[in-house]
Amino acid sequence: MKIEIKQLRKKILWTLKSNFSVKESNIIADYLLWAEMSWLRTQWILKLTWSEPLQDIQATWSILIERETKLSQLINANKQPAPLVSQIATKIAIKKAKKYWFGIIGVNNTFSSNWAQAFYVEKIAKEDLIWIVCSRSPAATTWFWSIDPLFWTNPIWFAFPTQEAPLVFDMATSAITWYWLVLAKARGEKIPEGVALDSLGNPTTDPEKAMEWALLSFDKSYKWSSLSMLIEVLAGPLVGSSWIDNKTFSEQWWSLFIAINPNLLIDTNVFKTNCSDLIKKVKASRTWKNIEEIRLPWERSLKLYQECVNSWFIDVDDATLLLLWY
Amino acid sequence: MKIEIKQLRKKILWTLKSNFSVKESNIIADYLLWAEMSWLRTQWILKLTWSEPLQDIQATWSILIERETKLSQLINANKQPAPLVSQIATKIAIKKAKKYWFGIIGVNNTFSSNWAQAFYVEKIAKEDLIWIVCSRSPAATTWFWSIDPLFWTNPIWFAFPTQEAPLVFDMATSAITWYWLVLAKARGEKIPEGVALDSLGNPTTDPEKAMEWALLSFDKSYKWSSLSMLIEVLAGPLVGSSWIDNKTFSEQWWSLFIAINPNLLIDTNVFKTNCSDLIKKVKASRTWKNIEEIRLPWERSLKLYQECVNSWFIDVDDATLLLLWY
Repeated sequence: MKIEIKQLRKKILWTLKSNFSVKESNIIADYLLWAEMSWLRTQWILKLTWSEPLQDIQATWSILIERETKLSQLINANKQPAPLVSQIATKIAIKKAKKYWFGIIGVNNTFSSNWAQAFYVEKIAKEDLIWIVCSRSPAATTWFWSIDPLFWTNPIWFAFPTQEAPLVFDMATSAITWYWLVLAKARGEKIPEGVALDSLGNPTTDPEKAMEWALLSFDKSYKWSSLSMLIEVLAGPLVGSSWIDNKTFSEQWWSLFIAINPNLLIDTNVFKTNCSDLIKKVKASRTWKNIEEIRLPWERSLKLYQECVNSWFIDVDDATLLLLWY
Repeated sequence: MKIEIKQLRKKILWTLKSNFSVKESNIIADYLLWAEMSWLRTQWILKLTWSEPLQDIQATWSILIERETKLSQLINANKQPAPLVSQIATKIAIKKAKKYWFGIIGVNNTFSSNWAQAFYVEKIAKEDLIWIVCSRSPAATTWFWSIDPLFWTNPIWFAFPTQEAPLVFDMATSAITWYWLVLAKARGEKIPEGVALDSLGNPTTDPEKAMEWALLSFDKSYKWSSLSMLIEVLAGPLVGSSWIDNKTFSEQWWSLFIAINPNLLIDTNVFKTNCSDLIKKVKASRTWKNIEEIRLPWERSLKLYQECVNSWFIDVDDATLLLLWY
């Protein structure tokens, strides 16, 4: 259903007001609207409707800095919501990488997972830094050839500046995202074959059974499992959090933010020009038969976002909207 | 064919002596023997036999440091061979990460690609650092849905310390490695279907045609292409090298070495204990039917290496050995 952006923002602010200040609510609303306008349907207002609704978050305390060096900071979020704390961590990483050329920020104990990092990535693009973020959550994905859930969908995000829009990457290491399951369940739909196991270790296409047990890794091989393990190590053991925990779904969300100043190795402006040239060459390469054009990561999201801005309207998933409204 | 390690070393030193000092030859031989003992058959003495034989390298000059900060160094290798310069870069990265907590070293203009980084990774494991290396070379792999070669097989290596042996990961982002092609060609074998294109953009199982044109990315999707692009950016535009160049095969090998001191966020000893626990939990997970045990990256290589050490013999590919000997 098409809905005016302004009207949706109002509804989001109203939903959040019981537990957050106006300022905090607006920061969170910025994120949610951006995610929907960028077509990241699994990371937006669904967050207000599912089993851990954002508006019910009760932070235990304000955030606490547990360790700090010139290049690093370890933040205990004390159950503050991820979009608030992630924005703080982003700002600190930028500050350190601007001043000291490198910044690494561990964030633990946020409430709920880290969501679409691309939001923060876009914000810091103007800062001309290379940006790598990864996060972990309770176990939901198997190691290759295993039937036990060990890792979360362990996503990794990275971005680099160019002379035009920054290039943004957003990849889960699991076969499908967790919110694909949530959405399929809400809609009463099946999930594809070969992406999930039930609690007996058998393949399943039932999203509910998959949620009870495990997803497979993206290519079912050691490669995505390995990448997933690297992410688990960076956002788990390295920030002193938990790892390969069972499905407790409490206090188990952790992230690592890394900002690298390209000026360590090259003049930033030259780096950006180089990256623009690289992208131009990729775009100019010839396609397979029946494929119209070469696509870049994030290209579609950028386009859809701009269309929403121009039209003032968002096309929202009916089922999700109903859950939010009633 | 089984051959005594000592005898093979002698042959390697003899092959290298025309162009390298005894000290340099021994450093290179260390690498080649280690790679074979670890079963990395695509990265070992094949390097002495194929189209760019290591022993023919004529370095233009000694290495030159082009840029340096406390945290970084940009090295121009002046066509010195990769295993020599990579060892220098490794040492510098370790020194910086020990002293300043982070080290990032760009290496450009080595002769030939960067080979099995796991060798250096193992060396620095005792140094208790997190280690990420990636490298690029001339174009050999397509972007997803493209028929043009844009990237090399763009491999990424990473490692982290544990209380036992370090965990080492070694992954090409292409469907198969370049040296799979080399070996298949030498043996007169086909390559699997669905991994390569000929110069008309059609699928091919002929290794020679694939070498003339392009490999596909590992899963044919945007995910491995994206990872490959990140590696191209880090080992190309960021170190001021070339990128998406055509198949010139000269002066086009570049690498980026990153060392992160875990002590930025946590006590190193706690980190290592955490990582050991994580690995234990992965190993203890239950397997698919018909799968005997959960395997970890590098586990098989470690075992094979140890078997060679114990027996004093290496089982070497006959075709490659013949090329070396005659």
